[in-house]
Amino acid sequence: MKGFAMLEIGKTGWIEKDIPEISPVDALVKPICVAPCTSDIHTAFKGAIGQRKNMILGHECVGEVYKVGKLVKDFKPGDKVIVPAITPDWGTVPSQEGYPMHSSGMLSGWKFSNYKDGVFAEYCHVNEADANLCHLPEGVDPISAVMLPDMVVTGFHGAELAKIEFGDTVLVVGIGPVGLMAVAGANLRGASRIIAVGSRELCQKTAKEYGATDILSYKDGDLVENVMNMTCGRGVDRVIIAGGDNNTFAQAVKVVKPGGIVSNVNYLGEGETVNIPRVEWGVGMGHKTITGGLTPGGRMKMEKMARLIASGKLDTKKLVTHVFHGFDKIEDALMLMKDKPKDVIKPVVVIE
Amino acid sequence: MKGFAMLEIGKTGWIEKDIPEISPVDALVKPICVAPCTSDIHTAFKGAIGQRKNMILGHECVGEVYKVGKLVKDFKPGDKVIVPAITPDWGTVPSQEGYPMHSSGMLSGWKFSNYKDGVFAEYCHVNEADANLCHLPEGVDPISAVMLPDMVVTGFHGAELAKIEFGDTVLVVGIGPVGLMAVAGANLRGASRIIAVGSRELCQKTAKEYGATDILSYKDGDLVENVMNMTCGRGVDRVIIAGGDNNTFAQAVKVVKPGGIVSNVNYLGEGETVNIPRVEWGVGMGHKTITGGLTPGGRMKMEKMARLIASGKLDTKKLVTHVFHGFDKIEDALMLMKDKPKDVIKPVVVIE
Amino acid sequence: MKGFAMLEIGKTGWIEKDIPEISPVDALVKPICVAPCTSDIHTAFKGAIGQRKNMILGHECVGEVYKVGKLVKDFKPGDKVIVPAITPDWGTVPSQEGYPMHSSGMLSGWKFSNYKDGVFAEYCHVNEADANLCHLPEGVDPISAVMLPDMVVTGFHGAELAKIEFGDTVLVVGIGPVGLMAVAGANLRGASRIIAVGSRELCQKTAKEYGATDILSYKDGDLVENVMNMTCGRGVDRVIIAGGDNNTFAQAVKVVKPGGIVSNVNYLGEGETVNIPRVEWGVGMGHKTITGGLTPGGRMKMEKMARLIASGKLDTKKLVTHVFHGFDKIEDALMLMKDKPKDVIKPVVVIE
Amino acid sequence: MKGFAMLEIGKTGWIEKDIPEISPVDALVKPICVAPCTSDIHTAFKGAIGQRKNMILGHECVGEVYKVGKLVKDFKPGDKVIVPAITPDWGTVPSQEGYPMHSSGMLSGWKFSNYKDGVFAEYCHVNEADANLCHLPEGVDPISAVMLPDMVVTGFHGAELAKIEFGDTVLVVGIGPVGLMAVAGANLRGASRIIAVGSRELCQKTAKEYGATDILSYKDGDLVENVMNMTCGRGVDRVIIAGGDNNTFAQAVKVVKPGGIVSNVNYLGEGETVNIPRVEWGVGMGHKTITGGLTPGGRMKMEKMARLIASGKLDTKKLVTHVFHGFDKIEDALMLMKDKPKDVIKPVVVIE
Repeated sequence: MKGFAMLEIGKTGWIEKDIPEISPVDALVKPICVAPCTSDIHTAFKGAIGQRKNMILGHECVGEVYKVGKLVKDFKPGDKVIVPAITPDWGTVPSQEGYPMHSSGMLSGWKFSNYKDGVFAEYCHVNEADANLCHLPEGVDPISAVMLPDMVVTGFHGAELAKIEFGDTVLVVGIGPVGLMAVAGANLRGASRIIAVGSRELCQKTAKEYGATDILSYKDGDLVENVMNMTCGRGVDRVIIAGGDNNTFAQAVKVVKPGGIVSNVNYLGEGETVNIPRVEWGVGMGHKTITGGLTPGGRMKMEKMARLIASGKLDTKKLVTHVFHGFDKIEDALMLMKDKPKDVIKPVVVIE
Repeated sequence: MKGFAMLEIGKTGWIEKDIPEISPVDALVKPICVAPCTSDIHTAFKGAIGQRKNMILGHECVGEVYKVGKLVKDFKPGDKVIVPAITPDWGTVPSQEGYPMHSSGMLSGWKFSNYKDGVFAEYCHVNEADANLCHLPEGVDPISAVMLPDMVVTGFHGAELAKIEFGDTVLVVGIGPVGLMAVAGANLRGASRIIAVGSRELCQKTAKEYGATDILSYKDGDLVENVMNMTCGRGVDRVIIAGGDNNTFAQAVKVVKPGGIVSNVNYLGEGETVNIPRVEWGVGMGHKTITGGLTPGGRMKMEKMARLIASGKLDTKKLVTHVFHGFDKIEDALMLMKDKPKDVIKPVVVIE
Repeated sequence: MKGFAMLEIGKTGWIEKDIPEISPVDALVKPICVAPCTSDIHTAFKGAIGQRKNMILGHECVGEVYKVGKLVKDFKPGDKVIVPAITPDWGTVPSQEGYPMHSSGMLSGWKFSNYKDGVFAEYCHVNEADANLCHLPEGVDPISAVMLPDMVVTGFHGAELAKIEFGDTVLVVGIGPVGLMAVAGANLRGASRIIAVGSRELCQKTAKEYGATDILSYKDGDLVENVMNMTCGRGVDRVIIAGGDNNTFAQAVKVVKPGGIVSNVNYLGEGETVNIPRVEWGVGMGHKTITGGLTPGGRMKMEKMARLIASGKLDTKKLVTHVFHGFDKIEDALMLMKDKPKDVIKPVVVIE
Repeated sequence: MKGFAMLEIGKTGWIEKDIPEISPVDALVKPICVAPCTSDIHTAFKGAIGQRKNMILGHECVGEVYKVGKLVKDFKPGDKVIVPAITPDWGTVPSQEGYPMHSSGMLSGWKFSNYKDGVFAEYCHVNEADANLCHLPEGVDPISAVMLPDMVVTGFHGAELAKIEFGDTVLVVGIGPVGLMAVAGANLRGASRIIAVGSRELCQKTAKEYGATDILSYKDGDLVENVMNMTCGRGVDRVIIAGGDNNTFAQAVKVVKPGGIVSNVNYLGEGETVNIPRVEWGVGMGHKTITGGLTPGGRMKMEKMARLIASGKLDTKKLVTHVFHGFDKIEDALMLMKDKPKDVIKPVVVIE
């Protein structure tokens, strides 16, 4: 089969590979709609997860089931499915403890374009199909749905980890597609005020459409000062970090109230440490909780998120700024994500 | 001072009383906008809380601070304030345990028109003013705000107790004003599907505006059967009970999934017991949690809810179907609530 | 293979069956130590779960792995293992939502001696072996360990559902083996006062050894009155129900404080409904949460519980009043459980 | 009145001050048993909280009520009481949000020997007496009880924040008196394995008595390597930090499992930042939550902790290595805490 791969760090290209084998609990899916992710760029061009040779990229996919193992019960060839970016091993001890994304070691639930070939291929392998696939609900189109495998669940997981309560003031740092979904997630948890931080105009406009009440640009000057002024010195109840850099945590700790939560869903690609300012962290006793986590993935999360689209509560179409048609357009879409011109939030490739 | 009171069970009328005394931590508030509540009707005409003689009714009020005790720090005469229906004693052991509404015994946080004179008076007494009053935020009008003291916080508490998660299917039984706020609350917690149960057309229409995706009438036949059909036999994730009767709990337990929650905010005025069906409750082992509680009240909750209005996330105006002008119209408004013609959700009296 | 079975309701006996087939993810285990459970008695003699024909009984077992499917990674023939009573299907949607015991429908995680043959056999079938078996830790003997599959995890689950906090007063109703483990669990969660209710002297004595500070007998008169007197009218923070009947819930609701929790782990075998007293339940608004659930089962829970024995924090030996030797003694042990003479808490059969 | 005070940074001595005035909700308490705390040493000799002039030290006290304000209901002169170190303003917004220790700003619940005179005086002022005092239970002696105001609630708060579950492996860093109570707290939450880190022999011995299963000395070599070896590379479920320095957090993050919690109750007195290692923190996505907080204080917590002593579940006497008699011995006790010879855990001064 054909696939678009990272050949080695810094080099990508089309390759030919064998169709993956499946075990009795797995499935083989034929992608019909895929999307490139910033992390594909980090993986392929910055070596963020280390060296990989001839690994097919991509982990955002809606597809059609092509073949299933004989123990698979709920899916059959021809079924339209959403494939989550994170496909845990569900029976392991970490999964039983509630952390499927770390099912066989930290972050190990992330398999596509990490430990195995991704979805920019004619076929992709889905482990534990009954637990990791999700039927595409009626009335949900593949383009909207392909935002679910990563963008929606990751942004929303930021909102979940932040434990937002009715009326909270929430700061969302970063308004790329994941940050925008963190805004939408905060909005759907009942935040009253959502301060979104980002510089690109299109993203600012879209953030407002997803529920941001205030916008701050990185160019507006000191973030801490700005947020403290906007909140009359009280600070915010919650911070969701979906962008910025390691420095962002110090800012977050400074603006969050005692008892508040800083929740990260941003992949931290550089630096030795994340530094927490001692004094503003209440000399260790301010109840300013710092957490962060990979999205859970799996079938249940996909089903619940897909229902939000189906019922009209969430419109993911605003994220999709570019639609390509044809399998061979995957490269163009990925390069668009790499170059990130002003008018792009997220490109999608409809394979057919 | 003048007030509209329950003279005894079944009898109401205007009375004259001394202006309440305040302790050093209390305040005296002059109501500028009040609303009658169904529970005023139950109290006055059905004796729901037992006999009361010459007790001024009313517990939903926006007012102006008239006088404060000398230990009060954050409020001064002339301040416009929201007065919560529930005004706990904040330092007690139950309050420290997180249950201020039961601060000095079960339900004892409910003082107005229960243990002391209510807000249908020229002046009302607010215990622990710093802890129980809330400044009316700029840009929030008193008519919108007077929905906060009880309707919003009670309906939203139903959603809080239900611990709704993104994408949940939620059944809301009862769509009077509290039920409608339960619908709005469920919607603001990220439910995907909200099935609202009620018969009055105006309430059905308003429920949809607040986020209900499906409407069921009590007249549509068996509730359990209908809900199971609508959910393809899966049942719902959560049930919020804001109406119905003791029977509603059995229905709720039947339609809620294992691991689900039934959350009640309806005052149960009659019957010896609430009966839980043994088999559908998983012979005691189905993880179908049944809970219910009086809203917390107090300053913080009012502030957070008021911010939802201020930021445009919640529009309480849709609840207000009738606006009266003048202190002496309180009686008319109350009687409207008693008669409940088809076109009423909630009347408000603007005193000046 | 040979097994001791329920032939039909009211009739038990030895039968001969084929050795179970296993799928690639399953295992076949040879029991080396088993224990009969009160629910075996209910199943076989009272028809508590309905008619079953020629179903081998038993769900408490420590054994040796005899054979594993080819996808099983962590276990191999000869490994000594603890087999949980509840063996969920780990990948299903309910499991992903945190309710593995209801993995394929309410209570469906309970398979042994319910949906399939139990462990009173020469071999037993364990679904999803990697997820449901647990290595017997060094230094933990099989007799102590065979209390883990059901008695410990069920009693402790009562304590988990009760969300006990440091210093809480906890009422435990029922001090058979599960109730005793609920006492031990409450003790290990930091309860200050544990009032245990039961009549048998041996159980009372053992309850004290597991941490009960006060004992009440069913014969001591009205439970509600007694508990209220013992707590100076304050009531208790938590109630764990591990015995009694449907009536026990009304008593529990009466003695639990507002904000308290009533947690059930008792199989409710009879009656149409569980009746909650309306007034003492705070007319629906007292925040007296009522919940109950089947224990989670699975590998992780077994491992964590086994560590409590290994580290000397929990001594399950006090539960074991009778030890039989030999496979053919299973019948005697079961009959002992049926007759329940005064001196029995739990019998164990050591097969080899 | 006489008191032992910090005269300025680095200088302590006896001073004479006016007896504090009380408001209608406050009380004046006559200490009968006090204990010096390491933080008194930091405050007085290291200037940890900045300059203070002539401030009476001490915040651990059992006393007798001398006088109460006229709104105080539950306490009267002559009552024996436990005075918590943290005495929040209970009605404020942060208190209503569940963070009384930050009731009027971060850490502001800590008033004694911080914002006002402490308890090393003939009389001490207790704000909101009904909410902040606790009756000394019958059968609890003042020497045991004086460990409650800070040592017990602080150590136990470490265990609370760590959200320990049955069978968890918990690492406790630091086994001074607070660390020892963290060990006891972890033990009372059902940890199976408790690895305690500290060098002093007496503390190691006492840690074992409080439930530690393993002891590591700072002198044993690399903490991370040791813990990983002891746990066969799995790491620990929870870390409670009750000692060490800012560096300890990096070690904690390295040994805690994905999904684990690092909970701090150690006052961090030095350094600009606490540094979290990026890679071991799962590049921000490992669900390794870092939190820390000042103990809640207040009446309810004191009551619940006191019950643990009253019921024999907690023996605080093991902490008390030195007992002085007489008000004038406060200086000696404080100096003992400063010099910290090998045989001291905690000195107590019995005034009468």
